[in-house]
Amino acid sequence: MEYAELLEELRGFVREREWEQFHDPKNLAMLVASEAGELLAEYRWIPNERADAFSPEPEARQRIAAEIGDVGIALLLLCDRTGVDLAAAWA
Amino acid sequence: MEYAELLEELRGFVREREWEQFHDPKNLAMLVASEAGELLAEYRWIPNERADAFSPEPEARQRIAAEIGDVGIALLLLCDRTGVDLAAAWA
Amino acid sequence: MEYAELLEELRGFVREREWEQFHDPKNLAMLVASEAGELLAEYRWIPNERADAFSPEPEARQRIAAEIGDVGIALLLLCDRTGVDLAAAWA
Amino acid sequence: MEYAELLEELRGFVREREWEQFHDPKNLAMLVASEAGELLAEYRWIPNERADAFSPEPEARQRIAAEIGDVGIALLLLCDRTGVDLAAAWA
Repeated sequence: MEYAELLEELRGFVREREWEQFHDPKNLAMLVASEAGELLAEYRWIPNERADAFSPEPEARQRIAAEIGDVGIALLLLCDRTGVDLAAAWA
Repeated sequence: MEYAELLEELRGFVREREWEQFHDPKNLAMLVASEAGELLAEYRWIPNERADAFSPEPEARQRIAAEIGDVGIALLLLCDRTGVDLAAAWA
Repeated sequence: MEYAELLEELRGFVREREWEQFHDPKNLAMLVASEAGELLAEYRWIPNERADAFSPEPEARQRIAAEIGDVGIALLLLCDRTGVDLAAAWA
Repeated sequence: MEYAELLEELRGFVREREWEQFHDPKNLAMLVASEAGELLAEYRWIPNERADAFSPEPEARQRIAAEIGDVGIALLLLCDRTGVDLAAAWA
C-alpha cells in the first residue's frame, strides 16, 4: 500500500470513530511509546544470539510484524496531526 | 527522500561503522522503545489542551521532528534486519 | 509487606521457575520498560484534566495499581540482580 | 533513607517548585515511561552475556543506579498522587 493511500485510510478510520478528539499529539506520543513497549515485550526473554533466528519463526514473525505495524501507524498518525513530514524527519 | 534511497543510505552508515554486530532485532527493538521514550519526554509536561498549539512552535517543532525521525529510523532498521515489510505490516 | 520479605518471596518465585537464566540486567531493564508501557496505556486516552478523578474509579484503580505493582516488581528484580540499593539510588 | 522520609522530601521538592500542577497521574505515568526508556538505553548495545559483568563497572554502575533511582522516584510520585500503596500493589 502506498503511503498516501494508507494515510487516507487511517484518516477515514479515525474520523468514523470520532477519535480526533483523543488524537492530540500528546496522546499520540503516548500511543507510539506504549506500542513500542509491546514490541519490546516480544524480545524480552529472547537472548541476543537467538534474536535473528527467532524473528522469522512463523508465530513470532506474525506477532512482531503486527507490533511493528502498530508502532508505524501510531507514528504516522502523529506525523499527520503535527504536520511533520516523516520522510523529511528522516533526512 | 525515497524509502529505498533512505534505506540504502542507512545501510551504508551502519556498515561503515561496523554496527551490524549490535543491530540484532532484540537490540533494535530496544532502540525503537528508547527513542519512543525520548519522543514521549517532549510532551511530558504539556497539557492535552496545549499539545496541538505547542507542536508547531519552532523550537518544539525541531525537537519533535528529530525524535519522530529517530523512532522512524529505528523502526526501519528493525524492518530491514527482520525482513518485515513496513508497508505490509501496516496493511 | 516489608521490602525484605517481598524480595525473599520474589526470589523464591523466580528460583522455582528457573527464571534466573532469563533475568540478566538487560532483560530486566526491558521488563521495566515494557511494564511502564502498559502503565502508560492506562492513561493514553484520559485527558490531563480528568486524570486525577479517573484514577480512583474502582476498575481503573485496580488496573493502575496492578501496573504500578508490575513496574515496581521489575525494578526490584533489577536492583536485586545488579546489587543496586533502591533506597540509596533514590537518595 | 526510609520510605516515609524520602516521600516527605520529594513532596517538599515538588511543592517548592510548584510542580503539583504538572504532576497529575497521566503526566507522572509519562515520566515513569520516559525514565524507563533512559534505563533501557543503558543496556541497548550490551549483549545479554555481558550484562551481568557490565553492570558493576564503576561508570556503568553510577549511570544505571541513577536511572533506576529516576524510575523509582517517578513511580513513588505516581503512587503518592493516586493514593496507591506501593507495598500493597506489590502484594
